[in-house]
Amino acid sequence: MNSIDKLAEYFIKFPGIGPRQAKRFVHFLLTRNPGFLHEFADLIKQLKKDVKICESCSRFYSIESDSNFCRICENPNRDESVLMVVAKDADLENIERVGNYNGLYFVLGGLLPILEKEPNQRIRIKKLLELIKKKNGSLKEIILGLSLNPEGENTLEYLTQQIKLVKTKSPIKITTLGRGLSTGTELEYLDDNTFQNAFKNRN
Amino acid sequence: MNSIDKLAEYFIKFPGIGPRQAKRFVHFLLTRNPGFLHEFADLIKQLKKDVKICESCSRFYSIESDSNFCRICENPNRDESVLMVVAKDADLENIERVGNYNGLYFVLGGLLPILEKEPNQRIRIKKLLELIKKKNGSLKEIILGLSLNPEGENTLEYLTQQIKLVKTKSPIKITTLGRGLSTGTELEYLDDNTFQNAFKNRN
Amino acid sequence: MNSIDKLAEYFIKFPGIGPRQAKRFVHFLLTRNPGFLHEFADLIKQLKKDVKICESCSRFYSIESDSNFCRICENPNRDESVLMVVAKDADLENIERVGNYNGLYFVLGGLLPILEKEPNQRIRIKKLLELIKKKNGSLKEIILGLSLNPEGENTLEYLTQQIKLVKTKSPIKITTLGRGLSTGTELEYLDDNTFQNAFKNRN
Amino acid sequence: MNSIDKLAEYFIKFPGIGPRQAKRFVHFLLTRNPGFLHEFADLIKQLKKDVKICESCSRFYSIESDSNFCRICENPNRDESVLMVVAKDADLENIERVGNYNGLYFVLGGLLPILEKEPNQRIRIKKLLELIKKKNGSLKEIILGLSLNPEGENTLEYLTQQIKLVKTKSPIKITTLGRGLSTGTELEYLDDNTFQNAFKNRN
Repeated sequence: MNSIDKLAEYFIKFPGIGPRQAKRFVHFLLTRNPGFLHEFADLIKQLKKDVKICESCSRFYSIESDSNFCRICENPNRDESVLMVVAKDADLENIERVGNYNGLYFVLGGLLPILEKEPNQRIRIKKLLELIKKKNGSLKEIILGLSLNPEGENTLEYLTQQIKLVKTKSPIKITTLGRGLSTGTELEYLDDNTFQNAFKNRN
Repeated sequence: MNSIDKLAEYFIKFPGIGPRQAKRFVHFLLTRNPGFLHEFADLIKQLKKDVKICESCSRFYSIESDSNFCRICENPNRDESVLMVVAKDADLENIERVGNYNGLYFVLGGLLPILEKEPNQRIRIKKLLELIKKKNGSLKEIILGLSLNPEGENTLEYLTQQIKLVKTKSPIKITTLGRGLSTGTELEYLDDNTFQNAFKNRN
Repeated sequence: MNSIDKLAEYFIKFPGIGPRQAKRFVHFLLTRNPGFLHEFADLIKQLKKDVKICESCSRFYSIESDSNFCRICENPNRDESVLMVVAKDADLENIERVGNYNGLYFVLGGLLPILEKEPNQRIRIKKLLELIKKKNGSLKEIILGLSLNPEGENTLEYLTQQIKLVKTKSPIKITTLGRGLSTGTELEYLDDNTFQNAFKNRN
Repeated sequence: MNSIDKLAEYFIKFPGIGPRQAKRFVHFLLTRNPGFLHEFADLIKQLKKDVKICESCSRFYSIESDSNFCRICENPNRDESVLMVVAKDADLENIERVGNYNGLYFVLGGLLPILEKEPNQRIRIKKLLELIKKKNGSLKEIILGLSLNPEGENTLEYLTQQIKLVKTKSPIKITTLGRGLSTGTELEYLDDNTFQNAFKNRN
C-alpha cells in the first residue's frame, strides 16, 4: 500500500469518516505547504505529552502547570458536594458551555452496551467508586448525566447498583437528569416514553 | 380557471401541500372510478353533520348517540379531578394512544403567537375559563400540555395568568408537563434550555 | 367506523399520504366553513364530468368546448411530425412548463414494472400503436420521454419493440432523451451508468 | 491556546469539518495508543516526500520507482490520443473506478469562480497548454470532464477559448461530457436546463 492509501486508512478510523472523506483529507493535506504538515504532525506526536488525564475526574486536560488535576477540579469555587458522572469529555464540555452547573465531574470514558460482560474494562467504574470513598463525608449528591438511549439507560442502572454498595458515613443522594419535553418537542409527535416521563415529572 | 386547476387550488390550502402535490392529488382522483369520487365527496359534505364539537372538551367527535359530549368526557371511569389543556385534536389523540393518562381534556383550538392582540379570537380561552368555574370543587389539577416552542411557551404564560384569576372554592394546582431529556437526547448536543430544565428537574 | 376515520381512510389512499397526515386533513376540513366543504365536494363530484381524456394524446383536460381533443392536440402550430411518449400527465406538464418542445404528446398512463405479464392492462400501448398507424406518413419521430429508473428502462425497451412492429409507409425514427450529466452532477460522485452515458454521448 | 485546542484548530481547516467534529477528532486521538499517534504523524510528515505530482497529468502519486510520471501516464496501454481534463484528483479516481475510460488525464487543480481575474493562479492552465503543444500530432481529442455547476461551466468556457488558441499541426477535437437524464432523473421534476440538454441530445 502506498503513502496516500496508508494515510487514508488512518483517517477511516476517525469517528464518522468514510473512505471517500478519508481520501479527501489526504488530498487536502497534499495541497498544504510543508510547514503546515510539520506543525500538524508535531502536535499529534506531542499530544499525549502535552495532555494528561486528571487524577480526580479523568478528563483530558492540557498541562499548563505541574498539577495532576484539571482546572475544574483545582478550582476552589466549584461545589465539591456535587459530582456529575458523564460518559465522555465532549459531554462535560457541552455542560460547561451552558454554564450553570457549578459542581465537579467524573468522566466514565464510555457507556455500557446491553449485556456487557466486563463493565470495568469498558468504563472507569473502579476509579469512580474509589473517588466516592475518598470524598466520603463531603460528597452529598451524585448526578448521573447520561444520554437517554439504551446504552445510557443500561449504564445508569449499573452505576446506581454499584454506587449503592459503597459504604459512606453520611448517605449520598443519587439523582438523574430530569426527563420530559425538550426544546422543540411537539405534543402531536411525542413518543410514549417521553410522554410518560413528562407526565410523571409534571410540576 | 378550469375544474382541474380549481380543485388543485383547494388542495393547496391543505396543511403541508404545495402546488405540485395538489396537482398530483387531482390526477389521482381522475384515475379513480366514479363510485370512489361520490362516496368521498359525500363524506366531505356530511362531515360537519356527522361530527360535533364536544360541549365539554371542545374536541371533534363523530355523532354516534344523541349525546352532546364525546366518549372521553362521557366515560365515568375518567378522573374528573384532572384536566389536561392541549392545543389541538391531534395532540389529544397522541396522548390517548400512549394510554396512561386517565383524566379529562380541553382542546384550545390553537396556540397564541407572540404579541397576539386578541387571544380570545385565537383560542377557546373563554370556554376554558367557564369550564373551570363550572367544575368548581371537583377539579384539583390543570395540566398545561403544550409543545415546547415559542408559541407554546407564550400560550402557557397566558393561560397561567388567566386561570389564576378564576375564583374557586378550593385551590386548583396548575402544572406543566415535565421538561428535561427526551428519548434519544445526547448530552454532547444538549441545548442550553434543555440542560437547564433537566438539571433543575433532576430526581 | 365513524365519519372522521372513514374520511381519513380516503385520504390515506392519496399518493404520499400516511395515517397521520390523513387525520390532519380531516381536522383541517373540520375547521373550514360549510361553504368551503360544499364547493370542494361539488368539484370532486363534477371532476369526471368536467374533465375528458383527449382522444389523441390521452391526457386529462377540462372541457371548455365540445372538442374531443385537448388544447395541445388541437393547436395547429404544434409540430405533428414529432410525438413524445410520456408516462403521466405530470411529466407532460413539466415539459410544457420548460417550453421549448413544440411537438405532440402521448400519455401512457404508467410505466411497466419488470416482468409485468400484461403490459396492455398497465399502459395504453394499444392506443399508442393505433395512433402511430393513423398518423402514418406525417409522423417522423417518436421520442420516448421516460424517467431514468428500472421501470422507465423496462418500458422503453418494450415500447421500442412494439413500435418497430408497426408497418408504416415511411420509416419513423425512435429516439430517447439524451443521457449524461444533469444540473448539479459532480464528477467526484458520478455513478457508473451516468459516466458511461456521459462519455458515450460526449460532443 | 493549549495543545488540544491547537490541534482542533488544524482539524477545523479540513474540508467539511466544524469545531465540534474537530474536537471529537482530538479526543479520538487521545484515546489511541502512542504507537498509533507516532505512525500517523510520521505518515503526515513523510507525505510530501512519498508523493509526487506527475509531470504529465499533475495528479498526486506515491513514489514507487524513480519515475517522474504516475502509473496511468506511464502505462503504454492507455490511449495517448485522448486527454480528459478534470478539476481534481478525486474526479479522476472516480472515473478510474468506473473503468471504461482508457485515455489519459490532466488535473487542473480546481475550477474557476465566475469573474476570476487571475485564472492562471487558480488552475494549471499554463501547464495544460504546454502539454497540448508537446503532444502535438498524437493528441486528437480533449474531453472537458467538469462538473455541471456554475464554476464548472465557467471553467469549461475558459478552457475552450484557451485551447483553441494553441496552434497544432492537426486539429484537436474539444468535447464535453454528454448532458441529459442521469440515473434516477424523473421527468416530472426535471429542471429546464436538463430537459433542454436531454432534448437536444436525444438519440
